Amino acid sequence: MGDVAQRLAEIVGDQHLLTGEAVTEDYAGDEALVGEPVKPRYVVKPATTDEVAAVLTTATEHRIPVTARGSGSGLSAAARPHPDGILVSFERMNAILEIDTTNHVAVVQPGATLSELDERTAESGLGYTVYPGEMSASVGGNVGTNAGGMRAVKYGVTRNNVLGLQAVLATGEVIRTGGKIVKTSTGYDLTQLVIGSEGTLALATEITVRLHPRLTHGATVLAPFSDLDQVMAAVPAIVSSGLAPHILEYIDALTMAAITYTAQLSLGIPDKVRDASQAYLVVGLENRETDRLDDDVQALGELLSGLGATDVYVLEGGSARKLIEAREKAFWTAKSAGADDVIDVVVPRAAMPEFLSRAREIAAKTESGVVGCGHAGDGNVHLGIFQKDPAKRASLLHDIFAVGMELGGAISGEHGIGRAKKEHWLELEDPAKVELMKRIKTAFDPAGILNPGVLFD
Amino acid sequence: MGDVAQRLAEIVGDQHLLTGEAVTEDYAGDEALVGEPVKPRYVVKPATTDEVAAVLTTATEHRIPVTARGSGSGLSAAARPHPDGILVSFERMNAILEIDTTNHVAVVQPGATLSELDERTAESGLGYTVYPGEMSASVGGNVGTNAGGMRAVKYGVTRNNVLGLQAVLATGEVIRTGGKIVKTSTGYDLTQLVIGSEGTLALATEITVRLHPRLTHGATVLAPFSDLDQVMAAVPAIVSSGLAPHILEYIDALTMAAITYTAQLSLGIPDKVRDASQAYLVVGLENRETDRLDDDVQALGELLSGLGATDVYVLEGGSARKLIEAREKAFWTAKSAGADDVIDVVVPRAAMPEFLSRAREIAAKTESGVVGCGHAGDGNVHLGIFQKDPAKRASLLHDIFAVGMELGGAISGEHGIGRAKKEHWLELEDPAKVELMKRIKTAFDPAGILNPGVLFD
Ligand SMILES: Cc1cc2nc3c(=O)[nH]c(=O)nc-3n(C[C@H](O)[C@H](O)[C@H](O)COP(=O)(O)OP(=O)(O)OC[C@H]3O[C@@H](n4cnc5c(N)ncnc54)[C@H](O)[C@@H]3O)c2cc1C
Ligand SMILES: Cc1cc2nc3c(=O)[nH]c(=O)nc-3n(C[C@H](O)[C@H](O)[C@H](O)COP(=O)(O)OP(=O)(O)OC[C@H]3O[C@@H](n4cnc5c(N)ncnc54)[C@H](O)[C@@H]3O)c2cc1C
Repeated sequence: MGDVAQRLAEIVGDQHLLTGEAVTEDYAGDEALVGEPVKPRYVVKPATTDEVAAVLTTATEHRIPVTARGSGSGLSAAARPHPDGILVSFERMNAILEIDTTNHVAVVQPGATLSELDERTAESGLGYTVYPGEMSASVGGNVGTNAGGMRAVKYGVTRNNVLGLQAVLATGEVIRTGGKIVKTSTGYDLTQLVIGSEGTLALATEITVRLHPRLTHGATVLAPFSDLDQVMAAVPAIVSSGLAPHILEYIDALTMAAITYTAQLSLGIPDKVRDASQAYLVVGLENRETDRLDDDVQALGELLSGLGATDVYVLEGGSARKLIEAREKAFWTAKSAGADDVIDVVVPRAAMPEFLSRAREIAAKTESGVVGCGHAGDGNVHLGIFQKDPAKRASLLHDIFAVGMELGGAISGEHGIGRAKKEHWLELEDPAKVELMKRIKTAFDPAGILNPGVLFD
Repeated sequence: MGDVAQRLAEIVGDQHLLTGEAVTEDYAGDEALVGEPVKPRYVVKPATTDEVAAVLTTATEHRIPVTARGSGSGLSAAARPHPDGILVSFERMNAILEIDTTNHVAVVQPGATLSELDERTAESGLGYTVYPGEMSASVGGNVGTNAGGMRAVKYGVTRNNVLGLQAVLATGEVIRTGGKIVKTSTGYDLTQLVIGSEGTLALATEITVRLHPRLTHGATVLAPFSDLDQVMAAVPAIVSSGLAPHILEYIDALTMAAITYTAQLSLGIPDKVRDASQAYLVVGLENRETDRLDDDVQALGELLSGLGATDVYVLEGGSARKLIEAREKAFWTAKSAGADDVIDVVVPRAAMPEFLSRAREIAAKTESGVVGCGHAGDGNVHLGIFQKDPAKRASLLHDIFAVGMELGGAISGEHGIGRAKKEHWLELEDPAKVELMKRIKTAFDPAGILNPGVLFD
């Protein structure tokens, strides 16, 4: 056993260090569709913050790359390790340390999964409102990617729901940022800086998240549109209405067909309506009180009809849940349909029609397929990309990302850049910003051990 | 005229450069109660981002300190310039460039004041929801301090309402961060990093802020309590209730007496109730619909009585507005009452009773006065400090800040550290964090020209 392995074994205990054959495929990457899995040289499973700190101290000393891993459900290959590196898997640091019902926060270890946290918070009628489609994702992974999900339209993304961190710097120093406080103007906001940094700045070892009261009454409304532009134009109007939907998704006709087929879900939409539909809106409303909810559903129905929906369906509980689940699984559907990539450009809400029509034009020119759905309320468009030829695909992606940026948007709304979109991002981003970010990276991680190859080359 | 003055005059135009006697007291500081005003050597009033960039390039070249100034209403002396430095006053860059009613954002120059923006957005039924007590404050100043104010309990602070910046780095490089998009996971969040950095990282030259629909129906409820602990304990219960107040302030008895006296405001509270009151809660509710508002006011009344309020008053429009205004002017009341400092510690909401009682004990020991009010919904306690002796005051502040931090809070919830609280912050903060922040500062501003003396020595 080499020096480093020995030291790591001392830190985390023999049985929590994997090397050689013991490193399984599980640790070789995340769910990104592009690139190949890479097994790391070492997998460590620390149990405490001190162990994480000791691992990072060792890694800095020996200049060994370190990749943090939550549940590996990310879509940007940011949890894909370096072949010579250490993968720090947070699977054992998964405790829910505290549900504080007076301050409305939970304090968790990074490996805690969203489903575990959901279950625990449900007991007190509260909830952590970041719901990316994948409930096996970890809270640490949410911090890494600044995860969004369906409810972001009402509750915001991870950034808006994480109040504090304990984090370990590359040097092994342990800091605390923020806390159970909803605001602070006391020095730079390190919490916000670490969120979305994809494991390149610091490793979060304890996370304080905001909890919201669960509103007990909910309704899901489905509205088919015969025109894609119209569906997109409807979105800002719904956001402005004051109805405050907690879900506002669009699903294009092909994706709807695919996900309902996969889920064996019949929504009771007459064939005639379905055949004439180019896209659908799914709108979720919730309230403390049934009467208010009923009134709001009524108002929403009228609004949607006025905005050009060909019909409005209030789904009953079972199909509503199934449709939302099917939508959450859209990624798997796209994958099994043979999608070559999945992207999640974000644009100003009102720019969605233009973005989508230009993306389709670009795709048509290269004979590629782009179909999808998205968090319409956030201007966040998820597109499955079907183009086998790597060069054509790269040029297609480049052009689509460029359009998104030209319209005032960004390459990724919630999945991150990671390794998967790095080349495009580095090509399209303002070099002054990239250089500034690199200097910030160095401020945190002078030896450059944290997730090298992610974001930057 | 020296070299530098000549260059600055070339950049902004003769008439927009002030030196010597032409530099008035107005530019010598902000509203902080501590320390002495300092006139800068140069005041420049740029009209464009390019001019700001040229000023900063010149300043970096000659190693001249630069302080940004909005309206100078800050309370941390962060807009107090360096005697050898350049004050960049944004008074001419005050245009409201766009009110985008589909994306619900406004794009403004930094010098635009809150009252100007409020007036312009009102026309379209939207509003920028950061309302610090001072409507002459600029949006750029809000970015500098991460301003909060009364509505933060519902709408969040500046951090939650600024989506994008155009900013000039110390080197003169101009970058754009974020935009009209509600989320992004595309590299480090530079927007969030600049917010709250008190002019030490970059100067914002264009700001994209989120707008919210104005809810047309509102009510203000006043509830006296005979016990300070009870009033504080009521706060988390109201936050949990789901009534989503947009104002949730506490005002202690002495402050209430002072502000109503100053405003010549009679609230119709019987002497007996008033004499028995230790503190008050002011709760604002708003809704799209009158019926819902009425029901919520009813529910709030019952909740407050159950929580120990000795009475519940629904204020009629005129007195409600006057009381809110008087509360916003509490700072001026404290100042004219001879307060020696005003602080704004933030703690977890549930820790407010303990914080306040310990702050009072500490004050009693040094025979100092601490009275105040605060954004109770945010756990943000504003205390007027009455202690003439500087040494005693310093030790008093140190001890109060230490208690706030011990309870999981931070020295400032919204006013910032600036020059005013720097010594205490540097003494009490984790050195590893201070060092990290200094390295981040250097990443932005290698020559250290941006607001030296603020935050760091
Ligand atoms: C079917 C499906 C649907 C999805 N839907 C959505 C969606 O709607 N919205 C959305 O935002 N995402 C979605 N995702 C992506 C994914 O679920 C999120 O990105 C999630 O946040 C990843 O969590 P994880 O624990 O799996 O992270 P991982 O994949 O393990 O890691 C993600 C990143 O975080 C870093 N990281 C992990 N732990 C830490 C830590 N403790 N400290 C610092 N950095 C750390 C990693 O290094 C990596 O850079 C979906 C994924 C799938 C498979
Ligand atoms: C009566 C009264 C009540 C108040 N109530 C509240 C309250 O409830 N909540 C609250 O948060 N604050 C409150 N304040 C403080 C103050 O109003 C806020 O801090 C406000 O944000 C300051 O804005 P300004 O334009 O006056 O900034 P200034 O005082 O001019 O500057 C503040 C900071 O921002 C920096 N800055 C200014 N412009 C820029 C720019 N373009 N780019 C980068 N940095 C910049 C400055 O360098 C400085 O560090 C109150 C003040 C008063 C006088």
